Amino acid sequence: MTEMDENARHREKMAKRKAVQDREVASKTETRGLLAVHTGAGKGKSTAAFGLALRMLGRGKKVVVIQFIKGAWDTGERHALERFGDQVTWHALGEGFTWETQDRERDIAACERAWDIAKQALQSEDIALVILDELNIALRYDYLALDRVLTDIAARSAGQHVWVTGRNAKPALIEAADMVTEMMPVKHHFKAGVRAQEGIEF
Amino acid sequence: MTEMDENARHREKMAKRKAVQDREVASKTETRGLLAVHTGAGKGKSTAAFGLALRMLGRGKKVVVIQFIKGAWDTGERHALERFGDQVTWHALGEGFTWETQDRERDIAACERAWDIAKQALQSEDIALVILDELNIALRYDYLALDRVLTDIAARSAGQHVWVTGRNAKPALIEAADMVTEMMPVKHHFKAGVRAQEGIEF
Repeated sequence: MTEMDENARHREKMAKRKAVQDREVASKTETRGLLAVHTGAGKGKSTAAFGLALRMLGRGKKVVVIQFIKGAWDTGERHALERFGDQVTWHALGEGFTWETQDRERDIAACERAWDIAKQALQSEDIALVILDELNIALRYDYLALDRVLTDIAARSAGQHVWVTGRNAKPALIEAADMVTEMMPVKHHFKAGVRAQEGIEF
Repeated sequence: MTEMDENARHREKMAKRKAVQDREVASKTETRGLLAVHTGAGKGKSTAAFGLALRMLGRGKKVVVIQFIKGAWDTGERHALERFGDQVTWHALGEGFTWETQDRERDIAACERAWDIAKQALQSEDIALVILDELNIALRYDYLALDRVLTDIAARSAGQHVWVTGRNAKPALIEAADMVTEMMPVKHHFKAGVRAQEGIEF
């Protein structure tokens, strides 16, 4: 096949593909406040939620982040989001990983406090995006009742987007969600002996 | 089982888990400039790369973003990252999706220009993170030679991190990478007729 033929064939193929794409785009008309879940054992669940926060902030919208496991840790993302002033409210309400606290009652109390704040954010009309970071961990250990979480999310302010992260998302949450991505670890540098590095893991 | 028993059992289980975690953390000693790939058909590949940029920026480091498919589009993430002044350099060098241009030679020329800029960033010692957004698409259509891309990435500045995004990552790139996450679409709101929304998709 000559290069000219190849280019002509490419053009034809892409023109067909564009017609399909245009039809698809035209078929999507609804706008909706989305409930999304990032789950799976791979890296990128919280990171993608913070990337979405960035996109929202660039559109002048307000974002609330509630962290259910991480506590008052010094993280790069938190420093960076401070630049956006009152567009971002950051609540790191966890007490650390469950194996750090080793105290189930303290973990439950921390999750209860975090959910009270989450509920306020969910009811607030001027919040465009609520990130419930590592909520799946709190649900997995039954530190929060799933029914209550699903009810409060369903009753949220109209048009508001909610992003939930953490491994082992409960089936009922996946069922309720509009968008679910599973981050699958194909390869992880920790396995090769590389340690957590500033700017990458924190 | 009484609640006291349950709490005691939890404490014991978590103490054991902490010992395992501590041993694991201690076994990881190396620091390294990572090559990472976000691939798969699910949502969150580019978004997680931008979330990582945020983390780096919060640590005072410099980031270069090179977009191989997206052109001079108005995106929320780009607006947001402008806040970080000269910590971020953003190059949207694509000409749009291949089915939009329908012009293979123009797509190839755009990718060549983008790779020249990428190579400069890869050689620059003061850049901590280079994001090669949708590079996998350019490689998939053979708009860039894989060998050349892998050689230039391998020869990058010491300690620099490189994040590659896009569906259908080439096996040789996955082989070369330190960290690979596949974003798997469990559910997507586009399928339910919801259209692209500001702050979510752009």
